[in-house]
Amino acid sequence: MSDTVFDWLDAHAEDRRKAGLARQLRPRTPDNGVLDLAGNDYLGLARDKRVTGAAAAAALRWGAGSTGSRLVTGSTELHAELEFELARFCGTQAALVFSSGFAANLGAVTALSGRNCSIVTDSAIHASLIDGCRLSRAEIAVVGHKDPAAAERALATRRTERAVVVTDTVFSVDGDLAPLPDLITACRAHNAALIADDAHGLGVLGDGGRGAVHAAGLAGAPDVVTTITLSKSLGAQGGAVLGPRRVIRHLVDNARSFIFDTGLAPSSAAAALTALSILKEEPDRAERVRTVAVDLANRLRAAGLHASEPEAAVVSVRAPSPEAALRWSDDCRAAGIWVGCFRPPSVPDQISRLRLTARADLTESDITRAVQVITDHAPR
Amino acid sequence: MSDTVFDWLDAHAEDRRKAGLARQLRPRTPDNGVLDLAGNDYLGLARDKRVTGAAAAAALRWGAGSTGSRLVTGSTELHAELEFELARFCGTQAALVFSSGFAANLGAVTALSGRNCSIVTDSAIHASLIDGCRLSRAEIAVVGHKDPAAAERALATRRTERAVVVTDTVFSVDGDLAPLPDLITACRAHNAALIADDAHGLGVLGDGGRGAVHAAGLAGAPDVVTTITLSKSLGAQGGAVLGPRRVIRHLVDNARSFIFDTGLAPSSAAAALTALSILKEEPDRAERVRTVAVDLANRLRAAGLHASEPEAAVVSVRAPSPEAALRWSDDCRAAGIWVGCFRPPSVPDQISRLRLTARADLTESDITRAVQVITDHAPR
Ligand SMILES: Cc1ncc(COP(=O)(O)O)c(C=O)c1O
Ligand SMILES: Cc1ncc(COP(=O)(O)O)c(C=O)c1O
Repeated sequence: MSDTVFDWLDAHAEDRRKAGLARQLRPRTPDNGVLDLAGNDYLGLARDKRVTGAAAAAALRWGAGSTGSRLVTGSTELHAELEFELARFCGTQAALVFSSGFAANLGAVTALSGRNCSIVTDSAIHASLIDGCRLSRAEIAVVGHKDPAAAERALATRRTERAVVVTDTVFSVDGDLAPLPDLITACRAHNAALIADDAHGLGVLGDGGRGAVHAAGLAGAPDVVTTITLSKSLGAQGGAVLGPRRVIRHLVDNARSFIFDTGLAPSSAAAALTALSILKEEPDRAERVRTVAVDLANRLRAAGLHASEPEAAVVSVRAPSPEAALRWSDDCRAAGIWVGCFRPPSVPDQISRLRLTARADLTESDITRAVQVITDHAPR
Repeated sequence: MSDTVFDWLDAHAEDRRKAGLARQLRPRTPDNGVLDLAGNDYLGLARDKRVTGAAAAAALRWGAGSTGSRLVTGSTELHAELEFELARFCGTQAALVFSSGFAANLGAVTALSGRNCSIVTDSAIHASLIDGCRLSRAEIAVVGHKDPAAAERALATRRTERAVVVTDTVFSVDGDLAPLPDLITACRAHNAALIADDAHGLGVLGDGGRGAVHAAGLAGAPDVVTTITLSKSLGAQGGAVLGPRRVIRHLVDNARSFIFDTGLAPSSAAAALTALSILKEEPDRAERVRTVAVDLANRLRAAGLHASEPEAAVVSVRAPSPEAALRWSDDCRAAGIWVGCFRPPSVPDQISRLRLTARADLTESDITRAVQVITDHAPR
């Protein structure tokens, strides 16, 4: 009997295999000679010696782990300094560091909504925001992708006193931008807060990489909460929520993914802190990553591919099917170019695509080579 | 208008303050001279030079972050090696590393249950398991704390074909043990799987610290899935799910907290891997931590306090009120002993307590000093 309890998994696995959706982990070596257009290390800081050196020094000085919840032994001076610097850089009153961007989103959405609240979300928000909504017990209204008029209607017709609009600033699959100005107008017309996930905006958009919320003039606004991750532009691990001081205080008391989770490892906090200071000193990195993305997309389109018009660091290229997308990305990898392959359920619209990410440290010849390889291996 | 959107938070904050439940972050320094009986670094490995050295070396070699989802660029050979070693040590077919124990629990519970499944849980399970249940869309039956007969009744009367029993092995607040043998009997009588969170069992219980699931003879069972954290006995950050190969493959394809989350930082994976190898070479650490816990509790009881009878590394001591618990722990801290203070909502029964954790590297004189200070500052 005990042998058959998980038999149902095999049928699921077989269905996925037949649909071309089975996934495989392919661990990488430290230096595989492959050009990486698949990761989210937009500024090229994950392997910067200053960043890795800070991570190493912090592990030696503070220990490998934080040893407890942030509310018990898991808050070090490093965490506090990182929170101070993130808030200062992004222009908010305060910040709170979580162990991941995923956890930051769960915490922000659940603690700031609840049973007596309506959440209005874009249909293409990140999985962690969706899970936050599901956990929240709020009334959920999912509106069309980048449709602020529909968001406004949902706010206007809600049955609860409180409401929150939840959106990515840069949508993770295609890299397109949320209409933040229109969304905040809708929020303010209907007494709602805005939670904006700037995971792919920080380091890429706004003045010196201060992110999409800053670019929209909303940093420091009393009704806006920004979530970020430390794992993309800042090259580390972890996440944070930025916003008014009273919001941060509320999260300390209420966010379950903060209270019941071990604090971020000191080495990751130190790495993010150093990456942030590099971004401050070298603000051109943000502009460079955007230029690279546009260049990459233009050249792919010139070669006849369906590439997106990038507004941040992500370029997506449509593929005819999940199998074709997988083969295409496998062929590129074999030819020395690593690109992402996004298939259901990781895409909002069931359309599979390659997902390329620009990096500030890509050279002209890297880009030329990438375009050549991707074009050469395109499905007919 | 935008200024008032978060006014409701102030009322909540005021309620918490009045109830003695407001929390405060108190960042620590690298060496504050305080004796730590509050963290979960049970084996004293978080600051072991071999562990911190491995973390530092991995950051330099692999980069500060993993740069992407485990399914894209976020799987390194370090992650694969850690998974192999965890499975081998704990006696399961396979393992999958997540960015936290919280994420591992969300992933295991959601991906292995779902709409056509019933989940039967102990009333005192960890918040991350509860959130996994809430996300699962399964039918949830919460039964009394450590009541396997009630669990069996819930399984027998369920309306779904599939079922999973979800429990902590060592409950996090009081450190008491789940009745694993009775639970697995109930599961097998009713064709249900068991998910056991061994966060506080790994490194402490079982042969050489192989955990409570191993101690119960359930390691490698085809119907048992174990979740662990790398942030307690292994002194790092991260989590893992251990179990049959087909379960792990299913999680790769389906666990949202795995798919949509950046992979664990290489430094944390390396730290956990080294901590695991130390535990293998120095298996006495597991026994030592249990001995310390029993000793600590016996001496506190001898001094007239309401200390639990520890079955693992955690000793809890009841306090008359949240305010008294907070004052007691503050006084201990001022006197050089750091103990945890658990108040609602972090306790299952609304009873506030001190939570002390034993460590394998506590000395006789550490224990004597701790008992003295805790007793001296006890509320009358
Ligand atoms: C938009 C968005 N939000 C949140 C996250 C989660 O951040 P993290 O990977 O740090 O958990 C991601 C990516 O992983 C993301 O793309
Ligand atoms: C029983 C239990 N499960 C899971 C977790 C979560 O693990 P992590 O802190 O690594 O996210 C914890 C503690 O934090 C715990 O006590």
